[in-house]
Amino acid sequence: MSPTIPPLAAKLGGLQSSAIRDLLKLTARAEIIGLAGGLPDAELMPRERIAAAADAALSSAGCLQYTESPGWRPLRAVLTERESLRLGRSVTIDEVFVTHGSQQALSLLAEVLLDPGALVVVEDPAYVGALQVFRAAGARIVAVPLDAEGMRTDALADLLARGERPALVHTVSNFHNPGGVTMSPQRRAELAELADAHGFWVIEDDPYGELWFDNPPPASVATHSRNVIRLSSASKILAPSLRVGWMVAPDPVCRAVELLKQGADLCGSALTHQIAADLLADETWLSAHVDHVRTVYGERAKSLVHAVRTRFGDRVRCTDATGGMFVWADFTDDTDTQALLPRALEAGVAYVPGSAFAVDGGYRNSMRMCFTTSDSATLTEAVDRLARAAQ
Amino acid sequence: MSPTIPPLAAKLGGLQSSAIRDLLKLTARAEIIGLAGGLPDAELMPRERIAAAADAALSSAGCLQYTESPGWRPLRAVLTERESLRLGRSVTIDEVFVTHGSQQALSLLAEVLLDPGALVVVEDPAYVGALQVFRAAGARIVAVPLDAEGMRTDALADLLARGERPALVHTVSNFHNPGGVTMSPQRRAELAELADAHGFWVIEDDPYGELWFDNPPPASVATHSRNVIRLSSASKILAPSLRVGWMVAPDPVCRAVELLKQGADLCGSALTHQIAADLLADETWLSAHVDHVRTVYGERAKSLVHAVRTRFGDRVRCTDATGGMFVWADFTDDTDTQALLPRALEAGVAYVPGSAFAVDGGYRNSMRMCFTTSDSATLTEAVDRLARAAQ
Repeated sequence: MSPTIPPLAAKLGGLQSSAIRDLLKLTARAEIIGLAGGLPDAELMPRERIAAAADAALSSAGCLQYTESPGWRPLRAVLTERESLRLGRSVTIDEVFVTHGSQQALSLLAEVLLDPGALVVVEDPAYVGALQVFRAAGARIVAVPLDAEGMRTDALADLLARGERPALVHTVSNFHNPGGVTMSPQRRAELAELADAHGFWVIEDDPYGELWFDNPPPASVATHSRNVIRLSSASKILAPSLRVGWMVAPDPVCRAVELLKQGADLCGSALTHQIAADLLADETWLSAHVDHVRTVYGERAKSLVHAVRTRFGDRVRCTDATGGMFVWADFTDDTDTQALLPRALEAGVAYVPGSAFAVDGGYRNSMRMCFTTSDSATLTEAVDRLARAAQ
Repeated sequence: MSPTIPPLAAKLGGLQSSAIRDLLKLTARAEIIGLAGGLPDAELMPRERIAAAADAALSSAGCLQYTESPGWRPLRAVLTERESLRLGRSVTIDEVFVTHGSQQALSLLAEVLLDPGALVVVEDPAYVGALQVFRAAGARIVAVPLDAEGMRTDALADLLARGERPALVHTVSNFHNPGGVTMSPQRRAELAELADAHGFWVIEDDPYGELWFDNPPPASVATHSRNVIRLSSASKILAPSLRVGWMVAPDPVCRAVELLKQGADLCGSALTHQIAADLLADETWLSAHVDHVRTVYGERAKSLVHAVRTRFGDRVRCTDATGGMFVWADFTDDTDTQALLPRALEAGVAYVPGSAFAVDGGYRNSMRMCFTTSDSATLTEAVDRLARAAQ
């Protein structure tokens, strides 16, 4: 008798691979200039400094054992000090929780903060890693648009005035992925006020805040309200393979996340936590290192923006790229970026069509371009190719 | 107006910290000999070999970047070769998926295989990390007892005959935690036959299989059926801080886990994956290293068992400790191990009462003792203290 093969869970039916990941597989050919990816440049990661820290950590056996679920305590101590400076108050170590990249913080927070059917407000266009998590949690998702000042808090206020009661509002406050914009100081204060008045959580997802090119971003939304949970990460300033993200959240939230983390994966890596702690505590070195990354990314960003404006003129409107990793661009002449993509690939350039980030459809004339992994000449060539494809 | 503090999700109500973790916090005093923990001995972890592998990995930037969600491909290739040998068939690389410790495999598999209310069969006493995951998934949990030959497959057959239809059966087939027993070859074949006949998944959770003292364990349950998902880990033979666990599962299961892994934490660490691949591929070194760990743990296990039998005679029945990390012991005279614990701590020894592993209560006269982190003299002293406390 042939064996009966058991089924997978029925609830998986709605799960889909990220359209962006599928696109990246298609566009990984060497002759294509990749503006589609979202990776930091590995050549700018502090390989030798990490090797020295690994060597120091491995001089004793402590870094090999299981560690505490909220993270290796000396790393949490370093982060507590940094976050206290950033937030302008004495953050306690119990408010700091290290996760396996900040994606894990999103995923565990979705479980801790959301009952099925809860309302989650996201920005549109949205960070797709957050959308994926909130959809998997069974949340009802409502989008609020972005403009040049970040989340349209007036649209959020309208939602609330109509009686909508979100459990959670998610924002990428600094150098938005994919939108490229930064929330203004006034919008930050407004968002925090709404959170306090209506009693909802805000997740301020901030992986890019250190990557400013000319001026640091405004004070964190979390400086305005204790209802704001701040997420950050070592992935964009040090290296993704440390898998060190962290959150600053009220103690009861951290304790609930701790229980879930035990079931999810017990704990992080004491080895990579120790390496991250070493580098983050080395302030003089870190400051020079991050300055260098800012300078290089800033030059690349300006080259990309300059090339787009030169080649396309009024036909394309794009963000200024004042930090982060992405430029968002809109064709003003109704060019469909999804339809353009095959021609662009043929011409040797890849980007992500705006529709991949749309919460409820739209952004058919938009695209996201990542400037981190190519030099200025290559970025200029990429835009030349795009211009040929779009003729 | 004071801010309105938002609530946590109502569904969290049932979440509890592991009783064992809480106990370990109480018993971490230096004067107490810890038999309660469940950690491998950090002094036996190959620190220098890991340092050399880290150094080699960090000679180029590749190990710093994000990696694929199923794991760094060369690590999957090494694991594919090892698992092909173990399972006696050509495992394909698409059947091998690296997780952040095998706890993450359990957690993602619970999402992939279980709809809410699905029936999960576990062994009693149970691995609490699995219980925690299945409870969080909203499963209905039914226990099947262990005996000296492992899971009582006759009891499982009775359940099935009564019309119960499990989606999943979980077993720790080798050197059970906490039960200390290993499933016999016949039981393995029976379990696989039941899985094939009734169409349920088996998770064969095998972190300890390499830690045999006299003879290797019988062939994996997964050699008997493709409905068996095998989990293993580098934590017990190399180091937990590599956070490298893996599963061997049919391709559709791996692809569903891949989608969930993207939302859970994007990917593992290319750095620790590269270190693990280096060590696992170095067969001559690995074989000598694991032999050494086996020898040391084997001596410790024998010392503990000898001391228990010498001091307690017929008053305590304990497992033989043929591998793994734990001895399970039952008082035959109705001694309540929960009530004994405060006196044991006062006498300077800690263990975990059997009730901590009970699925539906019971095991009030039992305890789990871990022998990995103390030398033979210390283990003997621990049993002396226990005997004094139990007088």
